[in-house]
Amino acid sequence: LIKTWEPTLQNYPMIGIRDDEFATAKKLITKEEVRAVTLGKLQLQDDLVLWDIGAGSGSVSIEAGNLMPNGRIYAVEKNPQYLSFLRENLKKFSARNVLITESFAPEGLEDMPDPDRVFIGGSGGMLEEIIEAVDKRLKPDGFIVLNAVTLDTLTKAVEFLEDHGYTVEVTCVNIAKTRTLTEYKMFAAHNPVYVITAWKGEE
Amino acid sequence: LIKTWEPTLQNYPMIGIRDDEFATAKKLITKEEVRAVTLGKLQLQDDLVLWDIGAGSGSVSIEAGNLMPNGRIYAVEKNPQYLSFLRENLKKFSARNVLITESFAPEGLEDMPDPDRVFIGGSGGMLEEIIEAVDKRLKPDGFIVLNAVTLDTLTKAVEFLEDHGYTVEVTCVNIAKTRTLTEYKMFAAHNPVYVITAWKGEE
Amino acid sequence: LIKTWEPTLQNYPMIGIRDDEFATAKKLITKEEVRAVTLGKLQLQDDLVLWDIGAGSGSVSIEAGNLMPNGRIYAVEKNPQYLSFLRENLKKFSARNVLITESFAPEGLEDMPDPDRVFIGGSGGMLEEIIEAVDKRLKPDGFIVLNAVTLDTLTKAVEFLEDHGYTVEVTCVNIAKTRTLTEYKMFAAHNPVYVITAWKGEE
Amino acid sequence: LIKTWEPTLQNYPMIGIRDDEFATAKKLITKEEVRAVTLGKLQLQDDLVLWDIGAGSGSVSIEAGNLMPNGRIYAVEKNPQYLSFLRENLKKFSARNVLITESFAPEGLEDMPDPDRVFIGGSGGMLEEIIEAVDKRLKPDGFIVLNAVTLDTLTKAVEFLEDHGYTVEVTCVNIAKTRTLTEYKMFAAHNPVYVITAWKGEE
Repeated sequence: LIKTWEPTLQNYPMIGIRDDEFATAKKLITKEEVRAVTLGKLQLQDDLVLWDIGAGSGSVSIEAGNLMPNGRIYAVEKNPQYLSFLRENLKKFSARNVLITESFAPEGLEDMPDPDRVFIGGSGGMLEEIIEAVDKRLKPDGFIVLNAVTLDTLTKAVEFLEDHGYTVEVTCVNIAKTRTLTEYKMFAAHNPVYVITAWKGEE
Repeated sequence: LIKTWEPTLQNYPMIGIRDDEFATAKKLITKEEVRAVTLGKLQLQDDLVLWDIGAGSGSVSIEAGNLMPNGRIYAVEKNPQYLSFLRENLKKFSARNVLITESFAPEGLEDMPDPDRVFIGGSGGMLEEIIEAVDKRLKPDGFIVLNAVTLDTLTKAVEFLEDHGYTVEVTCVNIAKTRTLTEYKMFAAHNPVYVITAWKGEE
Repeated sequence: LIKTWEPTLQNYPMIGIRDDEFATAKKLITKEEVRAVTLGKLQLQDDLVLWDIGAGSGSVSIEAGNLMPNGRIYAVEKNPQYLSFLRENLKKFSARNVLITESFAPEGLEDMPDPDRVFIGGSGGMLEEIIEAVDKRLKPDGFIVLNAVTLDTLTKAVEFLEDHGYTVEVTCVNIAKTRTLTEYKMFAAHNPVYVITAWKGEE
Repeated sequence: LIKTWEPTLQNYPMIGIRDDEFATAKKLITKEEVRAVTLGKLQLQDDLVLWDIGAGSGSVSIEAGNLMPNGRIYAVEKNPQYLSFLRENLKKFSARNVLITESFAPEGLEDMPDPDRVFIGGSGGMLEEIIEAVDKRLKPDGFIVLNAVTLDTLTKAVEFLEDHGYTVEVTCVNIAKTRTLTEYKMFAAHNPVYVITAWKGEE
């Protein structure tokens, strides 16, 4: 069954929504450029199941939803402030295929359907447990994408993923943007993000 | 009139198609990470008109087509070898809303409908003429996105765009990826790309 | 006449002095990694004359002085606050071969001996006039090194230098460092700096 | 005993020697910009003892020697081809205070005096053994600097160093340079290098 396409975003793009359009805390959001790279790495198709673990304010879930009109996105989040941002953003962007799992992962994952794709944007100190739980449920040919901003997470994620038999590719994204507010266009750097892609078997 | 959504890509993602899936010459393609950032900057919506000037092997046009099922993409290219890659890729990825304008821009632009978005991936030494031609046709609230890999193009593009009254934001994208072919995961850098976004009026 | 080498820095290194060792305003200093690259590009030898235009708090002058025990460094600065930092740092690091020219460049340059090397760390809106003045005085086989943090300075510097017959190489330096203060080592990016090297004639 | 300073490099700079001045294999050399950052991190003073483990073609040893006229640099290398480059370069640059230890580290370290600084540019698969051997000999207040180009070395080095009680700071250096050979100045990226600095005790 294929649903009829009904565009729900009248003023917003499919991807590339400006960061300041989201209700969020400044450090919480996956910034627009890294979000675009992340969505590319997720290789989304129309009707997949995506788990967004540590969904935060929901920017990845919302744009993933635009890319998968017949797909389902499960946004897993427990922090009350983030949940409030998440709900506000889902409403603003009419994200009808994003479902909230109010839970501290890996708790709550057992009630969600098996995923084709898993994005881990935050792990709350439970990275190993999350990877273990995800590994049991990820469909064959599925991917895991994980964004790390600390050396510790980068190191542990690669270790845990390889220990579970995944092949890992790490993409370091460095972005610098001109600030147009002043007379001069100064280049301001964003902190680097390591986008880790992992899949079972060989490349 | 809104067409019914019919997914045509069965094995390929909406965005994030791997570079090696495209028929192309190695240096010609907009690599997958920069392509994702570029598509984000274009802020595509379902039914827009996009001009892809210097379309090369068509990777941007094809993924833009996936993001705009009711939109039209005009891929402008003159180089015979690139045209051959472009045609092969449009067929492979069933890109039914990408139309080829076989022309050396700014020639040929006059026959295309006014654009909501313009992507300039290559200018063949005609950058100023292209920006002038685009400026006469770009719809209000439209954007121009231009990718520069040389200091010369970066400098000239910003100068020409500002001379024509555009506000300009420059995003420098630096990507480094691990190569998984060897026992060790070595970080290999891609050359930086300056993604220039330009719009009329203030930010 | 070659002076006997008398080490004056007992606790400080020749180069690589930590940023927080200098009296400075946070945004004023050339950070240690970019300072090291800059000093490398200056290709200093024991007894050269270096002009440091827009010397700020003097970190480049001081380390250049360590690299040229028989050289002379002219630190050109006019801002009273920066001069105060500069004097404090010259004293702290016993920089006996750094001479202050209290002047707003290009003023004051006429009283200094012809330079083998010129570093332009700040131009106070007088970039073209400074390059013109420097060009009249730079010794054959001399170099100019200029650090740009804005697109505007990058663009203008390259244009002015090429107009005066210089060959230009631009090195973009992107640094990200782990912050060790917290339990986790987070990568924090410095804003990119464009280190421009310019010399007369071909490469 | 302080020796009189006798400059031995007439045509070469103290630091910043161009990469193509060294006899080397292309991938072997620590490129000039990363070399400058590395030397800064080593915080060299006039009369220290430096171990350069995996010295390769000797570019770090040679410039370190210029920074420490009364110091001693022990260049540890075993590969016959590299040794040939190393000897040629020491001669060309009159590096009188660089001593070759022809050995596969950690072998050979026992015969060298205790180091104030240790640079590990290559470990030949013996990283843990080298760090262990260095740790027993490094003087109090000494530093270790290690350059990693693979994720594996980055991960292991940080782990081993922290296991031995070191505080670690990681500096990721991304360099892109314009190529001046063509009509256009294209930005070409160098692969990123992770410069790891490690010292005993807190920051």
